[in-house]
Amino acid sequence: MRRIVFVLVAVVAVGGVVAYVAPASGQADGEAAPIYVIKIPSGYRDWRLISVAHEEGKLNDLRAILGNDVAIKAFREGKLPYSNGAIIARLAWSYDSLEESEKAFGRPQSFVAGPPKNGVQFMVKDSTKYASTDGWGFAQFDDGKPASEAVQNTCFSCHATVKGRDFVFNRYSP
Amino acid sequence: MRRIVFVLVAVVAVGGVVAYVAPASGQADGEAAPIYVIKIPSGYRDWRLISVAHEEGKLNDLRAILGNDVAIKAFREGKLPYSNGAIIARLAWSYDSLEESEKAFGRPQSFVAGPPKNGVQFMVKDSTKYASTDGWGFAQFDDGKPASEAVQNTCFSCHATVKGRDFVFNRYSP
Repeated sequence: MRRIVFVLVAVVAVGGVVAYVAPASGQADGEAAPIYVIKIPSGYRDWRLISVAHEEGKLNDLRAILGNDVAIKAFREGKLPYSNGAIIARLAWSYDSLEESEKAFGRPQSFVAGPPKNGVQFMVKDSTKYASTDGWGFAQFDDGKPASEAVQNTCFSCHATVKGRDFVFNRYSP
Repeated sequence: MRRIVFVLVAVVAVGGVVAYVAPASGQADGEAAPIYVIKIPSGYRDWRLISVAHEEGKLNDLRAILGNDVAIKAFREGKLPYSNGAIIARLAWSYDSLEESEKAFGRPQSFVAGPPKNGVQFMVKDSTKYASTDGWGFAQFDDGKPASEAVQNTCFSCHATVKGRDFVFNRYSP
């Protein structure tokens, strides 16, 4: 017999971004569960570039950090904390040696972006909606779908490492 | 006594990009010298992202490839050759281990973009103006100034490696 579980989910839509308050299952201490961004912000691939990066090890990717207009303005002005409405996107692709370059040099020389990898991640600033995570809503989407709660839960704790930069790892590259 | 050398330079301004025909010094065979883009296309830092890359060895940088609207349209549609007016920009920054990440992992893990490095490069498509280099004008600017003729001369021969992709190394990253 299948068990049917009903879960109450509060859905809030503001400024084109939809978030939900995760059910507080297993949380006996009454603390609010983390809240996530559950819809991919539209048009993010057209946003301007903040910076680029490469992750080694298991991630092994090349990545780009893009920002919407509110985010780009904040990065360029260097003002912290980021204003409400700022959204930062992290795209990533596989880390591939460029064939033509490797042939010319006789060894790997140029590494270029291959197919998408490691999902697409977002940070959305809304000091009210995401008050429990210091004003940022975090999210990862794999093939267009929200990643598991286990994955989403890792965002905030890792970004807390750079709380002094309002939880943002990347700096703007001129 | 200083030698004063007069050089005849033909300056042409089309579509916001200024090019010049390099003096044909030392060219006895009558062939046209390569022509270069001599002014940085305005607003390029606001262009959309084509892709990202990492160069090893002496270059040792992280780079982003941006495109103006004409270029982005061509990349997304996958049509070759690129239309006149397409401009591709290559920005690069030093390849730096992110301190916070290295501390957390106990080894270099995240490489981020540091200060600008290796100049800014452009490819400008104009099949008439740059007919002698298969329709592309190439340029590198170091600290806002055109690089030496020796440097500029390396662009076309290297990009000829990917003539089949209309001289463009990078592919569009979705």
